[in-house]
Amino acid sequence: MERTIGILGGMGPLASADLFEKIIRVTKADRDQEHLHVVVESNPRIPDRIGAILSGTESPVPEMVRSALRLEAAGAQVMVMACNTAHYFYDDIRPFVHIPFLHMPRETASLLARQGIHRAAVLGTTALVEAGVYNLPFAENNLEIVYPDDYTQSQIMHMIFDGIKAGNLHPDLEDLPQLLHQMKERQGVEAFVLGCTELPILFDCPELRAFSVLDPTLVLARAAVLAAGGQLREEYAL
Amino acid sequence: MERTIGILGGMGPLASADLFEKIIRVTKADRDQEHLHVVVESNPRIPDRIGAILSGTESPVPEMVRSALRLEAAGAQVMVMACNTAHYFYDDIRPFVHIPFLHMPRETASLLARQGIHRAAVLGTTALVEAGVYNLPFAENNLEIVYPDDYTQSQIMHMIFDGIKAGNLHPDLEDLPQLLHQMKERQGVEAFVLGCTELPILFDCPELRAFSVLDPTLVLARAAVLAAGGQLREEYAL
Repeated sequence: MERTIGILGGMGPLASADLFEKIIRVTKADRDQEHLHVVVESNPRIPDRIGAILSGTESPVPEMVRSALRLEAAGAQVMVMACNTAHYFYDDIRPFVHIPFLHMPRETASLLARQGIHRAAVLGTTALVEAGVYNLPFAENNLEIVYPDDYTQSQIMHMIFDGIKAGNLHPDLEDLPQLLHQMKERQGVEAFVLGCTELPILFDCPELRAFSVLDPTLVLARAAVLAAGGQLREEYAL
Repeated sequence: MERTIGILGGMGPLASADLFEKIIRVTKADRDQEHLHVVVESNPRIPDRIGAILSGTESPVPEMVRSALRLEAAGAQVMVMACNTAHYFYDDIRPFVHIPFLHMPRETASLLARQGIHRAAVLGTTALVEAGVYNLPFAENNLEIVYPDDYTQSQIMHMIFDGIKAGNLHPDLEDLPQLLHQMKERQGVEAFVLGCTELPILFDCPELRAFSVLDPTLVLARAAVLAAGGQLREEYAL
């Protein structure tokens, strides 16, 4: 029996669209009727998560809960949320939700462990690093977590904000390939978690394609399809 | 006062994801909170539309109505539907829906007329041509409609099914550029309506980029944003 997937979205809207598209792409289906039922709620009334984490502005929790309950009312039986940083509030929302609610960082850490990885780096915005949403999931899976040093982190922020988010899908990478190579060689990083929707776009270029990476949105899409009783296309099987 | 957009989707799922993404992309918004509230219902239980039109298999109308009512219950105040061919059933669904329900072919024809176009070609699957969903909207706007001849139509089907849908985003175009050029020169076609989600991908190549085209999904996305009380980014303004 297949279940309806609910996407708690709007954080940001494009990240929700990306997760929706990935759920479709990984589903084993030869025709429309073989896909899963998906409901997306892209809610712009959810206050800024980064402000709430870093400087205590209005909490996004009540509006996230409202969206979650609307998804349940619309028939959702499995819930997912696209934004890595938003998982900082997962434990506050969980008690309000009756249906299974997948956790993107936990799904990602669990997959890394199953792949035999011992040490991985988490790349993302500075807010994601500060929120530390990957710390506990990594610890639970006996994984060592590595964050970029300050200079590398500033280069990543530069690529995300002045590159991809500003519409330049192929920004000048400057010394980023070399910095990542050093993390691999000197710190024993076996895989890079692309903890920001912009990063899979950045890493899809010849200079970065050789690095071993994991896209949490894709991991979550696959987990959602399986949790909903669907099947994965062969190339996405876990 | 901004309104919630409901996307009646699943026909196919990727077309719904494409419309959702285009709504986000055309919206004038500098941050997540400036986007519109969007609810997507991607329903795989809707039976095959092409079979119903061409050979009288099970009608998709009841299941489309169920999705429409679920969207209304979830708060949708403006409704849109991504699939061109599905508009064949628009008049059957309209009486069940209380909220404004935009019509993609009508929005497209109306925009062509406002652009001063008199004669345009509709490109799409053979089912779309047979369904004739653009005929009345064109007539209402005093536009002449041109369909490809049988050979050109077979080449378009070949590009859609053996090219894009089979995962080849840059198929060998064979004589398609020349055929379209002939439609322009001999039949006075001033613009090509890309009436199939795959076609904007196909036309995004150097050989076809010079043709004047209109993507109905993008037209609908812009109309939906305006109908919902949102604003368009400058480059998408109508």
